[in-house]
Amino acid sequence: MSKPRKVKVVIWGFGAMGSGMAKMILEKEGFVITGVCDLHPNRVNQKLSAVLNQKISTRQDVVIQEHIESLVSKKQADIVLLATDSFTKGAFYKIKWILEQGVNVISTAEEMAYPYANEKELSKELDLIAKKHKATVLGTGINPGMMMDYLVIALTGVMSHVENIEVSRVNSLSPFGETVMEEQGVGKTIEQYNELTKSNQLAGHVGFKESTQMICDAIGWKISHFEQSMSPIITSVDRKSPHGFAKAGDVAGVDMRAFVSVNDEIKLIMKHPQQIEPSLGGVQTGDYITILGTPPVHMAIQPEIDGGIGTIAICVNMIPHVINSRPGLKTMLDLPVPRAIQGDVRDQIERK
Amino acid sequence: MSKPRKVKVVIWGFGAMGSGMAKMILEKEGFVITGVCDLHPNRVNQKLSAVLNQKISTRQDVVIQEHIESLVSKKQADIVLLATDSFTKGAFYKIKWILEQGVNVISTAEEMAYPYANEKELSKELDLIAKKHKATVLGTGINPGMMMDYLVIALTGVMSHVENIEVSRVNSLSPFGETVMEEQGVGKTIEQYNELTKSNQLAGHVGFKESTQMICDAIGWKISHFEQSMSPIITSVDRKSPHGFAKAGDVAGVDMRAFVSVNDEIKLIMKHPQQIEPSLGGVQTGDYITILGTPPVHMAIQPEIDGGIGTIAICVNMIPHVINSRPGLKTMLDLPVPRAIQGDVRDQIERK
Repeated sequence: MSKPRKVKVVIWGFGAMGSGMAKMILEKEGFVITGVCDLHPNRVNQKLSAVLNQKISTRQDVVIQEHIESLVSKKQADIVLLATDSFTKGAFYKIKWILEQGVNVISTAEEMAYPYANEKELSKELDLIAKKHKATVLGTGINPGMMMDYLVIALTGVMSHVENIEVSRVNSLSPFGETVMEEQGVGKTIEQYNELTKSNQLAGHVGFKESTQMICDAIGWKISHFEQSMSPIITSVDRKSPHGFAKAGDVAGVDMRAFVSVNDEIKLIMKHPQQIEPSLGGVQTGDYITILGTPPVHMAIQPEIDGGIGTIAICVNMIPHVINSRPGLKTMLDLPVPRAIQGDVRDQIERK
Repeated sequence: MSKPRKVKVVIWGFGAMGSGMAKMILEKEGFVITGVCDLHPNRVNQKLSAVLNQKISTRQDVVIQEHIESLVSKKQADIVLLATDSFTKGAFYKIKWILEQGVNVISTAEEMAYPYANEKELSKELDLIAKKHKATVLGTGINPGMMMDYLVIALTGVMSHVENIEVSRVNSLSPFGETVMEEQGVGKTIEQYNELTKSNQLAGHVGFKESTQMICDAIGWKISHFEQSMSPIITSVDRKSPHGFAKAGDVAGVDMRAFVSVNDEIKLIMKHPQQIEPSLGGVQTGDYITILGTPPVHMAIQPEIDGGIGTIAICVNMIPHVINSRPGLKTMLDLPVPRAIQGDVRDQIERK
């Protein structure tokens, strides 16, 4: 029996995430990259091989386009990996347009990992559009999408009763670039940090609302109160990472927390301190899940799962599940368990 | 809007697992137990309340039946929890008959967690029967089903490349009863142990073939060689558990291992030492998953997830997913992520 045709992928947004996905896809069997769209002047009109600085077969060595219109149709693409936004609002019209072409989408936008949390109306609209055009849209990533939600939910699967949950992701910001340093306040003085937070200019982690709503919807907890906080992590020693520097007394990152009440009792706590060079602060990085109940679960992953590679991997690994899915807006709650693709991706596609 | 009718459950096999599931279901909203079948003379013709020694509403306080025939029909049951066997062959005719009534099944049989591993033909037959009668069958449990396979697979979901995998479940047999003591050789002398293994009378852990095949099929590894071993765990001190006793120099349990090669290279190692009172041997129990690759994953759950409660919980927690599923033989690879049921189970059922 001859192999079915390759899975055609278009990548929209070619920053660290989009280009990482391209590299991963190029290493796998059964995929073909049929188009890339990006706005950055250094990348537009360049060949993929030039931008990635690696050899690429002629068929896949596409020229990066500034405009998406000519790249996406049912004939040209089975799926678009959309790596352009953090918020559902920003990604909405892009996703809508892709779905209207009858093409599936995976979005890296943090809010899209569980868009019902912050954008109920837009979520309903996306679901309707997707169903109308017989396509599927999924938002995913390492966090939200996996470490502070999906994995928690999976572990409750072995429990007869859940009393309360504490999830903690202690990670290093050192691998990240300048944008992230800015967003997380790395290197700011305390005064600068206070100014920036007052004027809402520090993003911190986007995803607590999504992760907590996903967990609570999954296990059947009705949230009565949600609150989150962000505090500066002040370093007592100078810390230097490739793209960041915080001198002693300044901000090395932010400590984010969320508290979720069910019937006015705190049932779910999230802790997510992010900083450059955590070891210099005596901090061991890791992903931790503690669920009290029957039976209790105490999980630790040390060090933490790398956020950059993790997001790239889970987006690519979910491609077969999204293609196989019934149409509509899906979340990680709906689809089968994510898994690495070590063989030919076509073996995972159900023929219709 | 009025609530839809309750989810009707029949339990077939009322040992530790079946009766544990009944207790769990009785604590949840939206379920009703409509029948129980069991052969044990102490339980047949007894009311549920008498056997479980707890108050039960009149509707659910069924009399335990020796024969299943009158208990299972589409009208009486949405699902049967079948907790009678370890092997697919033993469970096959029971599952077949339930499916022929058009009723869904969850089986605790270890082999049924991934029946393709040992019983390809029976699996195909079950799939056909299920589809013909528009019902679904799933096998699951804590192990195989979750700790040494599903969780491993989920963690590979954040990886772009998997180099090799080592999974270890170090658990205590102390909570288990006399049957398990017998099956695992607890209390035997080394001579007795050697005799029993020579004549294939020690079961040890059933599930390595299922777990390893599930992992390899999921990520796309073709197995070139599988082998497993069992060695006695000799205790250097006397160990006593509620149902077992091993004196110094005798067998406190068994250490099971499996080695799986892909292209003649060992890629997947499973270690599962099971013994009574492991702490007396200086052993810390836990579930451990180490996956080398990009990024590497080092996970530890300490102590191990309780095997008894865990199996009971995951079987009950998967009920909505099985009811919602398309017909056929399904595995944990096919269905959405397991999750605890803290609210009304009916909220998880998709209306058709």
